Amino acid sequence: MESSSIITHKITRIGRSNSEVLDDALAVEEPLEIQVEYLADGRKVRKSISVTMRTPGNDPELAAGFLFTEGIIHSSDQIGHITHSALDENRVVVQCSEGFAPQLASLERNFYTTSSCGVCGKASIDAIKTRSVFDGTDDDLTLAAETLYKLPGQINHHQNVFESTGGLHASALFDSSGQFLMLREDVGRHNALDKLIGAALLTDGLPLNNHILLLSGRASFELIQKASMAGIRAVAAIGAPSSLAVQLAQESGITLVGFLKHDKFNIYTGHHRIL
Amino acid sequence: MESSSIITHKITRIGRSNSEVLDDALAVEEPLEIQVEYLADGRKVRKSISVTMRTPGNDPELAAGFLFTEGIIHSSDQIGHITHSALDENRVVVQCSEGFAPQLASLERNFYTTSSCGVCGKASIDAIKTRSVFDGTDDDLTLAAETLYKLPGQINHHQNVFESTGGLHASALFDSSGQFLMLREDVGRHNALDKLIGAALLTDGLPLNNHILLLSGRASFELIQKASMAGIRAVAAIGAPSSLAVQLAQESGITLVGFLKHDKFNIYTGHHRIL
Repeated sequence: MESSSIITHKITRIGRSNSEVLDDALAVEEPLEIQVEYLADGRKVRKSISVTMRTPGNDPELAAGFLFTEGIIHSSDQIGHITHSALDENRVVVQCSEGFAPQLASLERNFYTTSSCGVCGKASIDAIKTRSVFDGTDDDLTLAAETLYKLPGQINHHQNVFESTGGLHASALFDSSGQFLMLREDVGRHNALDKLIGAALLTDGLPLNNHILLLSGRASFELIQKASMAGIRAVAAIGAPSSLAVQLAQESGITLVGFLKHDKFNIYTGHHRIL
Repeated sequence: MESSSIITHKITRIGRSNSEVLDDALAVEEPLEIQVEYLADGRKVRKSISVTMRTPGNDPELAAGFLFTEGIIHSSDQIGHITHSALDENRVVVQCSEGFAPQLASLERNFYTTSSCGVCGKASIDAIKTRSVFDGTDDDLTLAAETLYKLPGQINHHQNVFESTGGLHASALFDSSGQFLMLREDVGRHNALDKLIGAALLTDGLPLNNHILLLSGRASFELIQKASMAGIRAVAAIGAPSSLAVQLAQESGITLVGFLKHDKFNIYTGHHRIL
């Protein structure tokens, strides 16, 4: 993680027998505006797509991952360049490749519903399932319980900013044998996952259908939705899943493990992949 | 909490020496659509304002709190009735009082920016500060360290659904002596706080300027923003605050405590209120 992910702030630490003034490390939270630029009828068009509160670092990955998991771009070759705005480090511009213009007509509705991390009920769950470009991709992924037991220890090892601030969510990627591949952190758990999926997208690593996604906290509907978009078939969460996360995992054919510890875990869906 | 806050799901619990199939309790996550109904030029108008993923229960409070903390309504007397849609239990309609029509012209922009829990940078922080109807309200609130130490134990005592599911965030309200007043839970921490503020609004309990707000997790910008809208002057979080949460608390004159435990805590802003 970059140094801009942490700032220090003078605090007073109060205890029963003493108090002291010291410098505390805070996880940085700042807005990022994601803009898309493309040609429409020969004219250059730039549209603001979203503002998300994020921890600076890996911004191009976050922008790419967000556009992909929201179904606005569908492959890395639809992206030309991703650049920070010259005027504002909290603005990223994603320039589309020549010949590609995103379908933004339905976007307002799209963002309306995802605006509070929400998508409307049963009908939309079906809609999302059909939207993933990797639906129907076969996998013969199997996971040993011993592999899963080892994951939480590895996430602690790699989660630098959380270590110092206690303030970040993480998403981590492993291969099916439990080999660590990458980790991304953010104040927003959806951003941590978008950064990770964006990193995979930009290195032509999608789909992630023979991998394990580890979530540092709870599993919500939104996170399972994003995982599904990236073709992920195995999700393990340190915390609890919500009802709708379990339902979507079930309908998307995802193996969902929760309350993962070094010696036990719960299987919520997709039991057949666990050895 | 209502029984609809929890559902059971059959899981397989895997351990090193055994595995068992059992019923596990899941925190329910479902979309709630918030609609506002009012008269414009003598005609009844109904507009969809937001869809949020929430845990069912206290929906009218959530709708009222959301509309208030987003600055769409400014007092309880602007609300006539709040009813669940007859057709859909995941839709709540807030009917405005006769003579009141919310200013929705700037709403799209408003929701655009809050869509990812975000509001743009420094300029907007100032904008939010001026938006609270309770800005400039005096308080002579003081908090004893002993009072703060006792709060985490009380939140555990009252947080029923978290107890059984491990899946919910909570916001709790105490008076300045540490007396428990109320607690609201939700899969979304912003929803838990909107429910609490909505409950206070609907019982004419605002501003909450002689109270302590306890957050079960981390303190983000968005939560401090909502607290500020309700006139809250003291926020204590069990977890870490983000950089922007600290900045906004500072600029809003809020005392912000983090990493609250039974025998210690950190003061980030507003030291003068802590005895």
